[in-house]
Amino acid sequence: MTKILPSSPLGVALIGTGFMGKCHALAWRNVAATFGGAHPRLEVLCDLPDSKAQGLAQQFGFARATGDWRAAVNDPAVDVVSITTPNGTHREMAEAALAAGKHVWLEKPMALTLTDAQAMADAAAARPGQATMLGYNYLRSPAFQAAVRMVQAGEIGTPRAFRGVYDEDYAADPDLPWSWRHTLAGGGLGALGDLGCHLISQMVALMGPVAEVTAITDIAHATRPSPEGPRAVENEDSALAILRFASGAQGSFATSRVARGRKCRLQWEVHGTLGTLVFDQENMNELWVHRAGEAGFTRHLTGPEQPDFAAFCPAPGHNFGFNEQKVIEARDLLAAIAGGPVTGPDFAAGLQIERIIHAMAASDGRPVTL
Amino acid sequence: MTKILPSSPLGVALIGTGFMGKCHALAWRNVAATFGGAHPRLEVLCDLPDSKAQGLAQQFGFARATGDWRAAVNDPAVDVVSITTPNGTHREMAEAALAAGKHVWLEKPMALTLTDAQAMADAAAARPGQATMLGYNYLRSPAFQAAVRMVQAGEIGTPRAFRGVYDEDYAADPDLPWSWRHTLAGGGLGALGDLGCHLISQMVALMGPVAEVTAITDIAHATRPSPEGPRAVENEDSALAILRFASGAQGSFATSRVARGRKCRLQWEVHGTLGTLVFDQENMNELWVHRAGEAGFTRHLTGPEQPDFAAFCPAPGHNFGFNEQKVIEARDLLAAIAGGPVTGPDFAAGLQIERIIHAMAASDGRPVTL
Amino acid sequence: MTKILPSSPLGVALIGTGFMGKCHALAWRNVAATFGGAHPRLEVLCDLPDSKAQGLAQQFGFARATGDWRAAVNDPAVDVVSITTPNGTHREMAEAALAAGKHVWLEKPMALTLTDAQAMADAAAARPGQATMLGYNYLRSPAFQAAVRMVQAGEIGTPRAFRGVYDEDYAADPDLPWSWRHTLAGGGLGALGDLGCHLISQMVALMGPVAEVTAITDIAHATRPSPEGPRAVENEDSALAILRFASGAQGSFATSRVARGRKCRLQWEVHGTLGTLVFDQENMNELWVHRAGEAGFTRHLTGPEQPDFAAFCPAPGHNFGFNEQKVIEARDLLAAIAGGPVTGPDFAAGLQIERIIHAMAASDGRPVTL
Amino acid sequence: MTKILPSSPLGVALIGTGFMGKCHALAWRNVAATFGGAHPRLEVLCDLPDSKAQGLAQQFGFARATGDWRAAVNDPAVDVVSITTPNGTHREMAEAALAAGKHVWLEKPMALTLTDAQAMADAAAARPGQATMLGYNYLRSPAFQAAVRMVQAGEIGTPRAFRGVYDEDYAADPDLPWSWRHTLAGGGLGALGDLGCHLISQMVALMGPVAEVTAITDIAHATRPSPEGPRAVENEDSALAILRFASGAQGSFATSRVARGRKCRLQWEVHGTLGTLVFDQENMNELWVHRAGEAGFTRHLTGPEQPDFAAFCPAPGHNFGFNEQKVIEARDLLAAIAGGPVTGPDFAAGLQIERIIHAMAASDGRPVTL
Repeated sequence: MTKILPSSPLGVALIGTGFMGKCHALAWRNVAATFGGAHPRLEVLCDLPDSKAQGLAQQFGFARATGDWRAAVNDPAVDVVSITTPNGTHREMAEAALAAGKHVWLEKPMALTLTDAQAMADAAAARPGQATMLGYNYLRSPAFQAAVRMVQAGEIGTPRAFRGVYDEDYAADPDLPWSWRHTLAGGGLGALGDLGCHLISQMVALMGPVAEVTAITDIAHATRPSPEGPRAVENEDSALAILRFASGAQGSFATSRVARGRKCRLQWEVHGTLGTLVFDQENMNELWVHRAGEAGFTRHLTGPEQPDFAAFCPAPGHNFGFNEQKVIEARDLLAAIAGGPVTGPDFAAGLQIERIIHAMAASDGRPVTL
Repeated sequence: MTKILPSSPLGVALIGTGFMGKCHALAWRNVAATFGGAHPRLEVLCDLPDSKAQGLAQQFGFARATGDWRAAVNDPAVDVVSITTPNGTHREMAEAALAAGKHVWLEKPMALTLTDAQAMADAAAARPGQATMLGYNYLRSPAFQAAVRMVQAGEIGTPRAFRGVYDEDYAADPDLPWSWRHTLAGGGLGALGDLGCHLISQMVALMGPVAEVTAITDIAHATRPSPEGPRAVENEDSALAILRFASGAQGSFATSRVARGRKCRLQWEVHGTLGTLVFDQENMNELWVHRAGEAGFTRHLTGPEQPDFAAFCPAPGHNFGFNEQKVIEARDLLAAIAGGPVTGPDFAAGLQIERIIHAMAASDGRPVTL
Repeated sequence: MTKILPSSPLGVALIGTGFMGKCHALAWRNVAATFGGAHPRLEVLCDLPDSKAQGLAQQFGFARATGDWRAAVNDPAVDVVSITTPNGTHREMAEAALAAGKHVWLEKPMALTLTDAQAMADAAAARPGQATMLGYNYLRSPAFQAAVRMVQAGEIGTPRAFRGVYDEDYAADPDLPWSWRHTLAGGGLGALGDLGCHLISQMVALMGPVAEVTAITDIAHATRPSPEGPRAVENEDSALAILRFASGAQGSFATSRVARGRKCRLQWEVHGTLGTLVFDQENMNELWVHRAGEAGFTRHLTGPEQPDFAAFCPAPGHNFGFNEQKVIEARDLLAAIAGGPVTGPDFAAGLQIERIIHAMAASDGRPVTL
Repeated sequence: MTKILPSSPLGVALIGTGFMGKCHALAWRNVAATFGGAHPRLEVLCDLPDSKAQGLAQQFGFARATGDWRAAVNDPAVDVVSITTPNGTHREMAEAALAAGKHVWLEKPMALTLTDAQAMADAAAARPGQATMLGYNYLRSPAFQAAVRMVQAGEIGTPRAFRGVYDEDYAADPDLPWSWRHTLAGGGLGALGDLGCHLISQMVALMGPVAEVTAITDIAHATRPSPEGPRAVENEDSALAILRFASGAQGSFATSRVARGRKCRLQWEVHGTLGTLVFDQENMNELWVHRAGEAGFTRHLTGPEQPDFAAFCPAPGHNFGFNEQKVIEARDLLAAIAGGPVTGPDFAAGLQIERIIHAMAASDGRPVTL
């Protein structure tokens, strides 16, 4: 897979410096060192308050800092904007960046509502020369890419069934305080928006488009404590679904943010007519493969026969890490900007993911056609 | 758990000598040696042809052999009848055995149709002094029993979600010849009847009654080869479902007989408000437990703190086997006959399982209330 | 593998009714039902006091009971004697049984001392028409047998290295009371005699004879509590060794009875020039196989392609159990008695195992030639 | 654990751009962005030919390139030198760098011979103001650090036994061509120098100093093909050892470069009087912990309660990667340079590791006191 990489440096703005903000910063620092091409110029970092932005700009190696995201977005030295702020800000920032002529790298989920996501996809479609990329990190892991290649090469025959879950336990404690994240207006969807959309991004890459979904959701803890007393949780703690794919295959889907003991259990399997693949992100360097005629499942460790891993390490079984997924994502965004293949998900593909999670949220046990 | 065991020996008839027939025979030979109580008298073994019955009666240690199942059922020396013949024979044999005043130990699924299962349950209900037991082996494994006790004791808080699959691959090969098993009239349901019902038996034991189910099914191989050319497969190769339990908990369910590489993957997890349990029958001596405050999942190996295991072996981690489940099932049947607790599933409880799998088969993506 | 099985029934005496005594009893009850051949006659069971023997004779299905082991050994209706009593009794009982013209099935280790083991092997050699068998259960598991066949068939090329451990934790608690088992005179060797000998039985079956061993041992808890105050532990809690095999291959060996959390970790791997095998008795139905050119290790689940498993169950992945190993061992003893192959370990082969563990116990870090 | 980080930037030279060279480059790029402190200045990169150095200097972000390592070492803008070239060059380069007043970060093993290692340690001791660090990456992984902390905190009581292996299969193929790496003069020790020393670095961190070692070694493939025909392999393909620690604990050790199917199996366990730890680098984000009174082993996933992980990612179970270990190593070197704690292994501690592997190589089955 030859990737086209930029020969002239691009200027970068980063908005937000939390979990994903730091991950973007490290990715921008490493992408050229890992894969070649021109090093991005780290122009401006935006966070609040200014002092925090100043400190982290120094730490992450950005030339300037600001507390004003509009200034960052409109900075003439900036070509591409990383947006890693809370979901409720995504639409406004992304639209502004697009309007300013910038490429956009946006964390998932796209937006709080399907209406917002549609508008953003429309905005991106109106500017075909500007690349968009959504932060579906897990699509980049070498083991996942190997799985996709195996499916595409027919190594497990025709995929007939998908089984997938994405469970974590960060909200399992009923004493976790109430926050705006638990509201539809502030947080949007719950487990579906935070976790489930990752699983769908992988599911669609493996199985193709979804035709129909039927889902139920649950709020495990109806209220959470706040200084003003218990307040209602509005978005789902978990969701379960069954799906029909356009191909005729079928699937099951589950996600939960209240699954005690699960930390990053993004786990799925694909049943093909000639074999089965099994993956679990908690052991992201293992892909389990069974092909007809083999005795059982074989553990494939990530190794340099996977090209994106080889750029990091020539030794098999020397673990690839979560953060390194983001470096590959940056590489793919840079390739798209440089006119190479659009591996996405861009805003158009991201909208499809949003449609699925919102269909699940609205299904209430009835089939929804997509 | 004190079990009441028979003090006077019961006479046994065994009909069928295949996979489950041999398993019943070994269970009858071992139950008293393992748990105490009077040894059953192995009176009569029935199979066809007579010569096979003769040979296996000698091998299994039965006093007499016959090719006539009615003779076996009506034998005055027989108190309890093990029925391990194809599903299409279950109703007739079970009703005859009940009519002859015998206790009945019947392999699952109960019957080909819900009508048949209802009739059988009615027949059993009309004879409350005669015990019935269905062969849901997996309910007896020490690890599963430990899981049930943990749930009942509140060790994982309130169960909120169930995720379960039962997958095998015995029908994955499209060249597997067509047989009567692939017809509704001859085989009844497909994966649901053969595998899925086991999962439901465990699910209900863990989660309580099901209120509503929505399911889809798939026939992966529409036809299978026969000497007369390809013939249609009528029953499902796989099924997927989402469920609401009467408790308010939710669940997902999947079963497949075409899952390449899966041999006995009866795998489930229960998410409670205070912990999570995970089990996979392919490693049936492991129960994985996470409780709030613990670092991760802990592997609980089957050991003598589980009373039913202790009767076989005093040493932890010395593996319990599939066949030994049946010995415990025999013990539980004998206890019910002796007036002890009815741990079942008897025909009444089995009917509930049948209702669920038939609801799944009929759902076609629409919710069905149970 | 055609096995020759007895056509006329053999009379059995069982001495001892603990862990292994019950295991022998179940094996005698099941061997013909599982594999065919004449059913053994369960003639006499011996334990103390008489009342216990009476109760367990009834439970296990023996015709008579006695508290006098010499009476059992000399009973004219008895052809074969199962000896499952403490190690210090093995020599006297085995020699008496051999002198009485009986076949002998003896639990491991053979004896407390090498002198005793040598005498027993001599006694057996003097009576070539009488079969002896030592209770190395783990040699019989289908997965282990599959491993041996793979090695013998050259599937992993030439074995070059062995790595093995057998760890349990039954003596890990320093408050475990002192007993005669902790003395050389009463218990003989410690972890080596109880656990290590099992590992050696498998190691030799996989790798062939041992040429040289160097070992060190440790007593983790120098004293243990007794009613009279702390008393000294005389035999080793753990042992470590390196080995040279006659073939030129090398090996490492470890055993411990104080390995916290280990329940039955009889775990080993064989490195061949063309592949690697890995096994762990705690998951005794899994054999992990890697062959040159394959991507990684493949999980081979026990299944009916392994003939000794097929006799119990026709379904792959339906777990074989610890106790069922003993049924195969009984079958192999009966085959030897009937003039079939001697799969052993008989007393001659057992003596070789004793030599190795006693060499380890005596090595103190210096090489010992065997 | 407060780390002292440099407040003024240090100038870096990197010699070598292979597997470890790129790993060092990425570490230098990331250390300040991850942990804070002044960003190192990437001054000069050295490799041959010049064109390669030029290209990789651009890619890795170094200001200048050279083909002359002495120029790099003596560059006045350089404060610290990363040496990642073949083992035979280590002594000369390290001594030159020390003589030039530089801090030295050197890949393991230190040198080809014990004499060289001793000389290097002497040179470093003579310049106490210059820090040295050896590239024992695996010491830095969060799971390993957690294990060390648990041992030091007494969570598993007193360590009594160590079991460790480090196996790979990169030399398993007998058709792997002969190279200078297979000679003592060119490559030094074999598996011990390449792999075994890593295991020892961890073993010593967990168990303390080694008092005595007894080892045997094997050359699995006596010759390897070369254009001139088969040539002799001089250094070991594998080694096995038993050890006594100064504490009185005992250990076993194994390493192989010909273990088919093993990719990075740096696997060990520590048996303490109150618990057991188990680790395998192939799943480097898992630490398995058993403590007295717990049911079994618990899987501890790497998470932000481990401070060095938290700097990369706030989310538990989001995998740490092999390359990220090196960033922590860089941080620890910078801390030592800045006058903080010396976590090493510096050259003095590295010499102890060399003494152990050379003792193993020379033992030939006889105990060697250290």
